[in-house]
Amino acid sequence: MTTKKKERKQTKEKPKNEFSSFISDFGLIWGPEPEIYGGLAGFYTYGPLGKLLKNKVENSVRKIFNSNGLREIEGPTIMPDTVWEASGHLKTFKDRTIKCSKCKAIFRADKIIEENFDIAADAWNDKKILDFINKKEIKCPSCQGKLENKIETQSLMMKTNVAGTEASLRPETATVTYLPYQRLYNYFKRKLPIGIFQIGKAYRNEISPRQHVLRGREFTQAEGQLFVDPKEKNNWGKYNEIKKNKLPFWSHKDKEPKTISIEEALKNKLIKSQVYGWCINLAYQLYISFGIPKNKIRLRQHHPNEKAFYADDAWDIEVNLNEYGWTEMCGVHDRADYDLTQHSKFSGQKLEATRENGEKFTPHVLEIAFGTDRPTYALIDLFYKEKKEQEGKTTFEIPYHMAPIDVSIFPLMKKPELTKLATKIKEDLETDFIVDYNASGSIGKRYLRSATEGTPYAITIDYDSLEKNDITIRDRDTEKQIRIKIENLKETLRKLLSKEIKFEK
Amino acid sequence: MTTKKKERKQTKEKPKNEFSSFISDFGLIWGPEPEIYGGLAGFYTYGPLGKLLKNKVENSVRKIFNSNGLREIEGPTIMPDTVWEASGHLKTFKDRTIKCSKCKAIFRADKIIEENFDIAADAWNDKKILDFINKKEIKCPSCQGKLENKIETQSLMMKTNVAGTEASLRPETATVTYLPYQRLYNYFKRKLPIGIFQIGKAYRNEISPRQHVLRGREFTQAEGQLFVDPKEKNNWGKYNEIKKNKLPFWSHKDKEPKTISIEEALKNKLIKSQVYGWCINLAYQLYISFGIPKNKIRLRQHHPNEKAFYADDAWDIEVNLNEYGWTEMCGVHDRADYDLTQHSKFSGQKLEATRENGEKFTPHVLEIAFGTDRPTYALIDLFYKEKKEQEGKTTFEIPYHMAPIDVSIFPLMKKPELTKLATKIKEDLETDFIVDYNASGSIGKRYLRSATEGTPYAITIDYDSLEKNDITIRDRDTEKQIRIKIENLKETLRKLLSKEIKFEK
Repeated sequence: MTTKKKERKQTKEKPKNEFSSFISDFGLIWGPEPEIYGGLAGFYTYGPLGKLLKNKVENSVRKIFNSNGLREIEGPTIMPDTVWEASGHLKTFKDRTIKCSKCKAIFRADKIIEENFDIAADAWNDKKILDFINKKEIKCPSCQGKLENKIETQSLMMKTNVAGTEASLRPETATVTYLPYQRLYNYFKRKLPIGIFQIGKAYRNEISPRQHVLRGREFTQAEGQLFVDPKEKNNWGKYNEIKKNKLPFWSHKDKEPKTISIEEALKNKLIKSQVYGWCINLAYQLYISFGIPKNKIRLRQHHPNEKAFYADDAWDIEVNLNEYGWTEMCGVHDRADYDLTQHSKFSGQKLEATRENGEKFTPHVLEIAFGTDRPTYALIDLFYKEKKEQEGKTTFEIPYHMAPIDVSIFPLMKKPELTKLATKIKEDLETDFIVDYNASGSIGKRYLRSATEGTPYAITIDYDSLEKNDITIRDRDTEKQIRIKIENLKETLRKLLSKEIKFEK
Repeated sequence: MTTKKKERKQTKEKPKNEFSSFISDFGLIWGPEPEIYGGLAGFYTYGPLGKLLKNKVENSVRKIFNSNGLREIEGPTIMPDTVWEASGHLKTFKDRTIKCSKCKAIFRADKIIEENFDIAADAWNDKKILDFINKKEIKCPSCQGKLENKIETQSLMMKTNVAGTEASLRPETATVTYLPYQRLYNYFKRKLPIGIFQIGKAYRNEISPRQHVLRGREFTQAEGQLFVDPKEKNNWGKYNEIKKNKLPFWSHKDKEPKTISIEEALKNKLIKSQVYGWCINLAYQLYISFGIPKNKIRLRQHHPNEKAFYADDAWDIEVNLNEYGWTEMCGVHDRADYDLTQHSKFSGQKLEATRENGEKFTPHVLEIAFGTDRPTYALIDLFYKEKKEQEGKTTFEIPYHMAPIDVSIFPLMKKPELTKLATKIKEDLETDFIVDYNASGSIGKRYLRSATEGTPYAITIDYDSLEKNDITIRDRDTEKQIRIKIENLKETLRKLLSKEIKFEK
């Protein structure tokens, strides 16, 4: 994520509704945690169903990155403050705050304007913000008291101390990926490009965490980093494979997105390099792989005044959520040589590469910065179908390949002969699939719960199963049922879930 | 892990040798990080090969736990200090320290005795420790100065502050799993037993981190937690399936481990309940699934004086490492109702379950507490084969199913016609496997590097491949080669890696 953050649209939290009951009652996300102690804003627990879903998202990230030549590493989440001084975070990673003179609550100064007037105040100077607040007589959102006529700053870095050394929790994974650059360069046989990614926790002391897990204080970052030779940025081997791909580019000069090819975007100077085009295509493919529908995705160019100081090219991927509208989900940034130069200067170590002709240079870094909380939340938000009584029942129509649970198993009745066989099938399938077993309640209610958890297939064991060695398998979306032999069940399920065969066969 | 830790054997760090070069040069583990800034003890980065290996370990944990009916959740790594007051960590999770009067370095008071005399001083009181140090004239290990005649304590909790709230980073995942008990109970339809696990970061401000990633300050915990009805502990449904399993139990009363059945261990009162037997069997199966050889594993019972105050039954799984000898890898504890009772008292919330007859009770918790750093390190340690010149070359003989990379791809020479086909094969395999591609250097050196990274199979594309549409596939351990058609390659690899077929076919 960019150090300088930007949210153009800020919707207030909605009251508890059926959607938020779904999120908590079906074991997706709980919090703020620790709930039994009253909760601390910005901290959440993924329940059993939510964690299975988040794992699917993270495995998609791994698959897409690995198959595009990036390798994963895992660095520490805590670094001594010398590192954050070099990266610029200690000095610049701050939000501006304003305090209520009455209740002493603290708010983000720019957000308090944006939330009241839908105006982006992020780039305004302090005076402009205070003048606006005075003129419009904006009050404390908590107690309606008068706001102090003073802007202060608060660091977003979460501090700790390691055996006497001042340290901070990382606010992103990027820095932690750049530091072992020499190790990476040697491991990859001293040749660029080098592609690396990290998936792991990051922390920000947000002044007012909001929008559920979309802006928590603890979150899971996922970031791809590409180290390249600046001379090769427009001589990018893999560019030809992707240049014809059409993406929904929304230039900051245009009123709406235009779906054009990457080649055209480069020609029109929407983006500056072939390698940047390759990265933004890869980022887009990630969101497609998560199962986000194409019509819910757009690429938004940063306005010149919201671009981070180190970023050359900078675009966001936004997803149109039902709850919060268009929401930032990923940033793709050309960070040029900023990071390696800074860390080289502060550490006194050379962080460079050598061309075949012996020339030495500092690699440029392109970054695909996102997290796994937002896509997980987006999948819940987009595929939750709350239906009116006459339309049928509420379901979770998540694409089958992203479903948290693969298959439900139901003995028709809770009779020993049926549950014995059902348990045997369960144990057999559990070695390869995520299985839910449920022996209680009417079969209709069990089908409904299975569909509401998004489970693609449900298997029923009845008395015929005992004689004929077969079961009924039911498709979530079509509600069609077929009978298949138990001996073929595992292979059939594997093929259905990997889309090798269709349910209708 | 137990709050009260215990290491009976403490080996000093060895100087940098071929094994530690292997760990860093082959991209397994780097650190202490940030290396370019001098490093902070106890923090490491898993490089590309190490992270692939760690992912294999974590996926094994998920597979074994899921297929035994446990579900994963993901809770915050930071909790307000009210939580740690209730859990007892703020008060008791401390180490005793002693300071050098000359260089002011701080050491663990009990460890300084154990390291010099191989005596377990962990259970001694302060006076006994000081008397022993004085009598034996133990000096400062750093500067040989005189140690102060005073024991102090240092908390192992890493502190932070969240928007004004005092908080700490979790030192294990257990507490964070217990807190949403009510949510879990409702999600699982208000029925026990409930099995939950977490895999995630935990932090301890160790006074002297040592033994590489075995005792870092930041590490990945993996913990299974079983909530059970205390009345069912000796009426455990799944007990019959595992009671005949023989495990290497080492009672604290015996001089060496005895391989006996779980049933016999229960009868001999080595363990107290059927459910505990089931848990210790599950823990053992985890280590078998990681590929740790059986003869390197033993179960060690805690001595009565090292058992944590909350633990009823308590055994460790130990693995015999080449570098450090027998090393604690996992603790299995019957924590009874300690945690839920404490959090109920401190939060004022009822944390209980209801029997079918309406009786209410506080569930008991059994815990399988381990981490994924130690098994990952153990696999490197146990399967690294450094060979003398005349014996052949150094290799990494990790079991095939745990190998970080599935397959290497080598065009015989760096000629366009060969690299073109090799790249095509690479891209095709990358969607399903972790693939390494290497076009440079002699084929012999490439085979060697592939074997040293532990990769089970290597594929070579030569001029015959262009004509006959086939490739050579080479088995890591036997070094045998066969030619197969490119069209069958993906399916053959899948079957080889899942052990459906053998290399010799």
